[in-house]
Amino acid sequence: MRALVFDGTLQFVRNYPIPDVPKGSAQVRVIKAGICKTDMELIKGYRGFKGVLGHEFVGIVTRCDDPNWLGKRVVGEINVACGLCEWCAKGLGRHCPNRTVLGIFNHDGCMADYCVLPTGNLLEIPAAVMDDRAVMIEPLSAACEILKQVTLDGSERVVVLGDGRLGILCAWVISTVVSDVTLVGHHPEKLEPAKWRHLKTALTADSIKAGADIVVDATGSSQGISEAMSLCRPRGTIVLKTTVASPDKVNLAPLVINEQTVIGSRCGQFKDGLKMLELYPDMPTQQLITARYKIEEAVTAFERARQPDALRVLLEIWQT
Amino acid sequence: MRALVFDGTLQFVRNYPIPDVPKGSAQVRVIKAGICKTDMELIKGYRGFKGVLGHEFVGIVTRCDDPNWLGKRVVGEINVACGLCEWCAKGLGRHCPNRTVLGIFNHDGCMADYCVLPTGNLLEIPAAVMDDRAVMIEPLSAACEILKQVTLDGSERVVVLGDGRLGILCAWVISTVVSDVTLVGHHPEKLEPAKWRHLKTALTADSIKAGADIVVDATGSSQGISEAMSLCRPRGTIVLKTTVASPDKVNLAPLVINEQTVIGSRCGQFKDGLKMLELYPDMPTQQLITARYKIEEAVTAFERARQPDALRVLLEIWQT
Repeated sequence: MRALVFDGTLQFVRNYPIPDVPKGSAQVRVIKAGICKTDMELIKGYRGFKGVLGHEFVGIVTRCDDPNWLGKRVVGEINVACGLCEWCAKGLGRHCPNRTVLGIFNHDGCMADYCVLPTGNLLEIPAAVMDDRAVMIEPLSAACEILKQVTLDGSERVVVLGDGRLGILCAWVISTVVSDVTLVGHHPEKLEPAKWRHLKTALTADSIKAGADIVVDATGSSQGISEAMSLCRPRGTIVLKTTVASPDKVNLAPLVINEQTVIGSRCGQFKDGLKMLELYPDMPTQQLITARYKIEEAVTAFERARQPDALRVLLEIWQT
Repeated sequence: MRALVFDGTLQFVRNYPIPDVPKGSAQVRVIKAGICKTDMELIKGYRGFKGVLGHEFVGIVTRCDDPNWLGKRVVGEINVACGLCEWCAKGLGRHCPNRTVLGIFNHDGCMADYCVLPTGNLLEIPAAVMDDRAVMIEPLSAACEILKQVTLDGSERVVVLGDGRLGILCAWVISTVVSDVTLVGHHPEKLEPAKWRHLKTALTADSIKAGADIVVDATGSSQGISEAMSLCRPRGTIVLKTTVASPDKVNLAPLVINEQTVIGSRCGQFKDGLKMLELYPDMPTQQLITARYKIEEAVTAFERARQPDALRVLLEIWQT
């Protein structure tokens, strides 16, 4: 099959072996896949991954021992848990220490004609949700998780730092329950398409009044946490979405002095992302699509995704 | 009056002016004062403080426009809030941006014959609580605050990092509600006196099973947070008590990957510390007293407090 493979260098190959389908798993023919910042880190060597890249997709089930799944249009949760450990027993399979992760850790990804996931990871997509939106469910779910981790009554003042795709999705999701949300970024060309409902935008954090109740750090920069601490009120909450490969000097004393709380937030449940798309059909996810490429052009697509103005680059793999 | 003064150098003086007593405040004749790690930081230049040091004391009210306070034995909350701002209105005067802090910021401290605080900061000490224990209320209250910031049902596994006085007090306080608590430190001579009830101790974190539900970082070291992240389970909670003057490189990625929560924790309410002393008369606070000095020997006392084995050094200022 066609696949985008990373083994130290990034290359498109035509004859990658089609993956086996274990019992309880499904083969998915991939329609579209999204390029994410994690993919950009993986090709710099993050987590030492080798294999087929990609963990955001929408596709059609083409093989499965459970015939009910055949032909269904699906997205898939990326963490493949062991199902046996104490974490799995608690329903926290995404923290299973034995897990593999689609296109990220010990599991070939979705930037290929086919990928394979356990059926328990799949979520069927209703016909009303188009492919372009369905492929957004993974990062959208990660944004939705904030609503579960932080109790919001709508009266808060929220600041989201970072005008990348995740920052914008976080700002949108929080805007559905909070009226005073400001998205801060350095790129006017990214802030403009982010405008939705009552969301405010700002080009520098200097223009933001300190003392916000909640600050989300989605900067992807090691200095984001320091900016978040200075914008957040005493006893306020910082949601940390940023992971960076290399550590930097961080002074955490303000966190103690101001008794702030930092909540690490990684991924969410796909059903929450899907529900958000269904509840808000006007959420302008199309605005986030910067460019589309065929899988044969995947290396070029990664170059495009690396540009500072890029929000979301899609690979179109199969025309249904 | 006699006082320990820092103005770039640390010196004992005999003729420091007795502070004025504004309306609504009380003059307290200091019986004993404790030397704290913050004092050691202040004489290195932390916060640029100049004046009389000291913020942990027990004393007798000797002047006050409200006669009900006269002759009362008291301890005092160290944050002197403005009483007018939005933080004060919320009852969070210790985060008042206009506050002064006894012996720490713009307010002469208690290592002197007299100090002055608003009566609203004072707490009367019942006769059953001895001076040596009363002077422990400030750090003990800071430890008690953890019980308000983290919901504990007693079934958790808790690790406290740091065998300094604050670490020991945190471990003791948590032991009153949780049965599985381990205190980790590098000094056998500090861990031994820390033994109380079912509290376990360990000389290295290597011997601790990872996956603790709650980890308290009271190491006072910039690397404490990294150790806490590695010992804490996914979705677990880290209570951060450590403040260090100089920032260090910290990789916060594990916090996001494991979706841990960090709660900055500074000080508590004195009534909670007092209640703890009354509820647990067997809490071995005497074990923490390393040495006692007269105020004339205060500079020597600071030298003693700097030694690695020192837990708590007291200044005995006035014999009642």
